[in-house]
Formats: sequence, structure tokens, C-alpha cells
Amino acid sequence: MNVDEEFSAIAKSLKASEIRELLKLTQQPDIISFAGGLPNPESFPVGKIKEILDDLLEREGPRVLQYGSTEGVNRFRDVLVKFMAERYGVHIGRDNILITAGSQQALYLLAKIFIDPGDFVVVEAPTYIGILTAFQSYRPRYVTVEMDDEGMNTHLLEETLRDMVKDGRKPKLIYTIPTFQNPAGVTMNLERRKHVLELAEEYDVLVLEDDPYGELRYSGEKLPLLKSLDKNGYVIYMGTFSKILSPGFRLAHMVADEEIIHKAVLAKQGIDLCTNTVGQFVASEYISRGYLDEHIPNIIRLYKRKRDLMLDMLDDHFPDGVKWTRPDGGMFLWVTLPPGVDAEKMFIRAVENKVAYVIGSAFFPDRDHKNTMRLNFTYPTDEQIKVGVERLAKVIKEEIS
Amino acid sequence: MNVDEEFSAIAKSLKASEIRELLKLTQQPDIISFAGGLPNPESFPVGKIKEILDDLLEREGPRVLQYGSTEGVNRFRDVLVKFMAERYGVHIGRDNILITAGSQQALYLLAKIFIDPGDFVVVEAPTYIGILTAFQSYRPRYVTVEMDDEGMNTHLLEETLRDMVKDGRKPKLIYTIPTFQNPAGVTMNLERRKHVLELAEEYDVLVLEDDPYGELRYSGEKLPLLKSLDKNGYVIYMGTFSKILSPGFRLAHMVADEEIIHKAVLAKQGIDLCTNTVGQFVASEYISRGYLDEHIPNIIRLYKRKRDLMLDMLDDHFPDGVKWTRPDGGMFLWVTLPPGVDAEKMFIRAVENKVAYVIGSAFFPDRDHKNTMRLNFTYPTDEQIKVGVERLAKVIKEEIS
Repeated sequence: MNVDEEFSAIAKSLKASEIRELLKLTQQPDIISFAGGLPNPESFPVGKIKEILDDLLEREGPRVLQYGSTEGVNRFRDVLVKFMAERYGVHIGRDNILITAGSQQALYLLAKIFIDPGDFVVVEAPTYIGILTAFQSYRPRYVTVEMDDEGMNTHLLEETLRDMVKDGRKPKLIYTIPTFQNPAGVTMNLERRKHVLELAEEYDVLVLEDDPYGELRYSGEKLPLLKSLDKNGYVIYMGTFSKILSPGFRLAHMVADEEIIHKAVLAKQGIDLCTNTVGQFVASEYISRGYLDEHIPNIIRLYKRKRDLMLDMLDDHFPDGVKWTRPDGGMFLWVTLPPGVDAEKMFIRAVENKVAYVIGSAFFPDRDHKNTMRLNFTYPTDEQIKVGVERLAKVIKEEIS
Repeated sequence: MNVDEEFSAIAKSLKASEIRELLKLTQQPDIISFAGGLPNPESFPVGKIKEILDDLLEREGPRVLQYGSTEGVNRFRDVLVKFMAERYGVHIGRDNILITAGSQQALYLLAKIFIDPGDFVVVEAPTYIGILTAFQSYRPRYVTVEMDDEGMNTHLLEETLRDMVKDGRKPKLIYTIPTFQNPAGVTMNLERRKHVLELAEEYDVLVLEDDPYGELRYSGEKLPLLKSLDKNGYVIYMGTFSKILSPGFRLAHMVADEEIIHKAVLAKQGIDLCTNTVGQFVASEYISRGYLDEHIPNIIRLYKRKRDLMLDMLDDHFPDGVKWTRPDGGMFLWVTLPPGVDAEKMFIRAVENKVAYVIGSAFFPDRDHKNTMRLNFTYPTDEQIKVGVERLAKVIKEEIS
């Protein structure tokens, strides 16, 4: 059968991402890759998970292994209600929470329930690649807002919103990772957080606050979630257990007003009926037994060391004219090469020199900013960080000269 | 914020299903429900799962808890390659397999990559509700083909295809559950299986073979999968571990030509990146250690007893003029009341009498056939089957008279 003729218009528009193709080049064992976005497996609380699973299967196996409701397992949602209140000062009820198969699914559900083709979505420049793949088939148009070391520039956001509303192009959503942004590694300061909320209210636009890394702070002071500043239901919050428990369970949670959760639940019914229940029960115990609180300092210790090491290595080896961010947490930092240096062209030479990164232009909807790259510091070993930065520095120096 | 104005056209079209609302009525503890579609928790191999998880976390915890690839964990796909060959005579490679979050997600992915609005999909009448929710937002038009005790009437299918092609309405897909159909409980005979394949080739139409219950045979002889008769890539097969391991892991597999798997992978990247890896490793071990083969007879013993008991009770208590199917396997049987009796209206009276079923019209795209209902026999206890059928028989007798 000639199946190509049968595909839908959406399927025809789905193309393999160049980035993924490039990343395949980095899978050879002798290449040191700063390209990945994986947590370090050393960060997984394997022993605690084993203990919890043993107990759960012993005491209530049949319940843990059964289908759950689309909204999520009630025990888990109740634990999260308490967690959001105690940890973040976000006071909600069970019906404000939907458990999703990772934050990727939360993004997809939000695209499905909010985006008609041509709708405008405001994103940071650079932004997370996952929102671009999640939103792709709903065909939004993107408007970007620049960032600096203090996160999204909200004065530019204000100008952007004013211009858009004036032109009749009111955006549907503003998408931000305020804390330890992926890919830039920067954090939005408190003043700007308040400003985002004011603008959301003034321009009547929903804000998606994606918070996958918020618990992974290695320096600086904790800042409030946008959701905790939100009095009138403008913020849709997304948290995940992929970085503080295990990505293998595919567990995230969306926190929003009931009407939004209700629509997202209806959409999810058609997509996968429910999120895997085993992981939900494990995560419930992981929090309620206090293991999350015990374990996060271990992850922070591991990642802080790697961040510091990478920053030291960059300070020592990268040539003048190259700049990078100094993240207070998270998994990534962002490198800006001198104008005119093309990180996309340089990638092949980097791989020849057995080191890899993600090309920065992949994080911009219009694929510009060719002189940028993202480096991950959580996955490589300390030795790989040392050797990899030296290799990368050599490639950059050759490219500049 | 007034969020209603912000929703997409798709979101506005998503409505809570009446069926789900009715099912909420059945959740009171004193109601005996034949409405559910859940496996019996007694069927879960809790001890084996515990043993496998202990071993996996002990020996390779970090790998089991990490992200997997969108296609699925290679170890699991390789186990399934062997499984499909040995068990079903279906000879494929790893790249013909995609692991999905339950069959529901496989259906959703297929809708996304094949269905443009207005496309025609041929379904059995009655058909599985899950395909209607999975396909809903891609807005196909349905054409139904009647069934009898031998499954889909393929002569009617042939007439339907001939008429459709003549009218320029060539269907995109034919969807069937050939074995122990949900909701009807009937099985397509061998001659018709071959006929479906001939028609698929003649009319150049893809066939979705959904096979969630195939391993649950209590009587009669094993029949070949449509996929095993398929020489030219016309069949997309869907299997699941929800009924033979545990639904809580949300694990299913789609088997199809590489081009189809490739497009489905691209679609899945945007939806949830990957299926939970923990479940995939558990299922791999469950099969490769031989536990699946050991355990299926236990499930069959349990469910066969329940099927036999329900059939005996129906024989003894249901009044003349009521007919039902006698399934050789699976989880459901299908009841046809005398013409003019409305199972939808009768539902409230049934609930008052503390017994519940699913209204048959829910399984027809056009909601006709009001005199039908689906009964599940796997979830209730033996005592509930006895008492529940007596209650239902009383309600039906009152309704008829």
C-alpha cells in the first residue's frame, strides 16, 4: 500500500527536527555531549523508590495497578494540594489539579484547548523547544520577547502587548519559564514577576508558568512562583517530577482554574484516558513520607558542583568575546559567540573534535541568533565537563580566528 | 479572567460525555455495576511485578528511571518482535513497533496522522467508545457495518466499500476489534478475516486491528490476527498490556509499516515525548521470564467462571424476547431488548434498583439502537453477578410489561 497518500494534512506537516538528526551524531560513545537535557541518573532516589514500590505492592497492589481517573489519582492530587500550599503558598483545591504524562503533555493539552490556527503566543527568546513541538500542529504564530540576566524583559513585554492589542492581534498566551530558564539559564527577578502579573491582568492574557527546575537552586534566594502572585486566575502553572524524582514515570501536574482543568481533562480522555497510576502512587508516598525534602539537597549538591565546575572551566578556557550566563539553578547555560560566528556551521567541527552542544537557533521560532548555543551541565561526568570544555574552547578559538 | 472566551474551537466542541455522567450515578457502593470496563484486580500478577521491580531497581535502577526514546525502550520493542513472531506469526522488526500510553493513545495518534476533517472511517456497529473520543477532534464521518454472531458482516462491508468508492467517498480507515469485540462480545470468523484483507487490498484501505482482549479466550479455537494474514502493509495492529499485566502502567504497542510508525513517532514527540519507561522494563521482564505465559491461564480461569456464571444467570432470569451474545472471550456481552424498549430510559429505573449497565446507543456514532446494552462480567464478584442479574431481570420484566 502507498501510505503517503493517506496521511492527514497535519501528518504531512510533521517533519523530523533537524536538531534531533544532529543529536544522533552525538550518540557515539567517544563524544562528550553537552547537548542532552537529561537529569543525571545519580540524582535518582533508587533506594527510596524501591522501598516505596515494595510497600505499595505489598499493601495495596491491586489499587496501584488499576486504571485511574483522567484527572489523576485522588491521593496524589491531595498530596499536591498540600505541597503547593506549604511549599509555594499556592492555595488551591483538588479540582485545580490535573496529572499529566510529563509537562510535554500539559503543553500539548493547553495547545489543544486554547490555540486556533493563527493565534498569537508570546514566548521568551530563546524559548523551550518542547513548546514548539507541542504547539506545532495547532499552528500558532509566535511573538518573541528578549531576555537578559534577569529573565524576560517585561518592559519589552509591555510594549509588545500594547502594540499587539492596538493592531488587533491580542495574544492567547504568554509562555515563560521564569526560574532557571531552559535554554538560557536565567531567572526572572521579583519585580518582573509582579510586572508580568500586572500585564496579564491589564491585557487580559493567560500566562503559562512552566517550572520544571524551580527546586534545583544552587545559589541566590528563592523567588515566589507567578502562580503564588496570581489572584484572579491568570496563571496556569506546570510542575514536574522528572527532575526531582525520575523522568521514567512521566509525571507532571497542571494547576489552573477549574474550567481550564475541566477542558484539559476532556481533551486528555481522548488522548490516553489517564496517566500511569503506578508512578502517581509512588510520587504521593515520596512526598508524604518526607523523602522529597530529604533528597533534593542531594541533587542540589551534585548539580551545584557540576555548575561550578563548568563555569570555572568556561572562565579559564573560553576566549575573549564569548559570553555565557551564570545560572543560579537548573540544568543549562547559554553561550553567545561573537557576532558572525555560526554555531550551526561550527557544530560539525565540534563533533569532529568529539564534543557536542545544542545549536542556539533551535530555541527561536524564526531560527535566528545563529551565534548561540546551549550547554547542559547536569548529565556529563566531572571529567567530561573538564575535557569537553577544553575541546569546545579549541573549536571556538579556531572558528573565531 | 473570563476563560470561556479564550478556548479554541476544538475545546468548545469537547463536551462531557453523557455516558460518563450516567456512570457517575453508578459509583454508589450499594449499586452493582455491569457498566465498567475494568479488569478484575484479582487478575493482576502483583507478586511477579514486585519481584521484577525489585530486580530491575536493584540491578539497573538508573536506566529504568531515565527518559526513554519516543519509539519506546529498545529492550521492550525487541521482546515484542519475538512475541509477535512466536505467538502470532507476525514477522516484523523493531522499527515496526511504537510503544504508546495505552491503546487509547495509539488510536489518538492514528487519528492525528490520518484523519482530515470530513474523512470517512468505517466502524463496526456497535463500536468501541474509545475510538469515538480519540477521533472526535479530527472530525471524521463514520460509516457503520452491522455485525452478527460471527463478527463484522464482510459482505455488507464489501457493499459499503463499493458504494462509497462509486460515490467518491473512499474511506481512510476500517476500524475493527475482530476478537471478543467491545461492546458486542462477538468474534470475526476466519473466512471473514480473509475477506477483510481481500477488501482492504481491493479497495486500497488501511485496516486498524484493535486487539485488547485476544489473549483472553475461554472457549473456541484461536484464530489468526488480521495482521498475520497481511502481506502488503494494510493492517495497523494495536495490542495492550492493560488486560494481561496491569492497566496502571498504561502500555500498548502499535505494529505497522515503518512509514506509519515514523509519522506516529513525530506526532507522539509533541504529545508526551515518551511512554513511561518503568512500565516498559517491567513488561519486558514479564514476557521474557515466561511469567506472561504462566499467568494468562489464571486470568482465563477467573474470567471464564464469571462469563459462565453470567450466561447461566441470563438464561435463568432474563425474560423471553431478550437476546444476548455468548462471547468466547474478552470482558463484555451485548444484550438486545425487544424492539421499542428504551435502555436509556430504563437506566434510571435500573439505578433505583441498584444495578447498572452501559446504554447500547453510546456505542453507535449516530446513537441509535436504543434497545441495547453492554454488560461487563470481569469486574463484579460472583455474588454481584448473581444478585445483579436478578435485579436487572426484574427491571427489564417491568419495562416490557
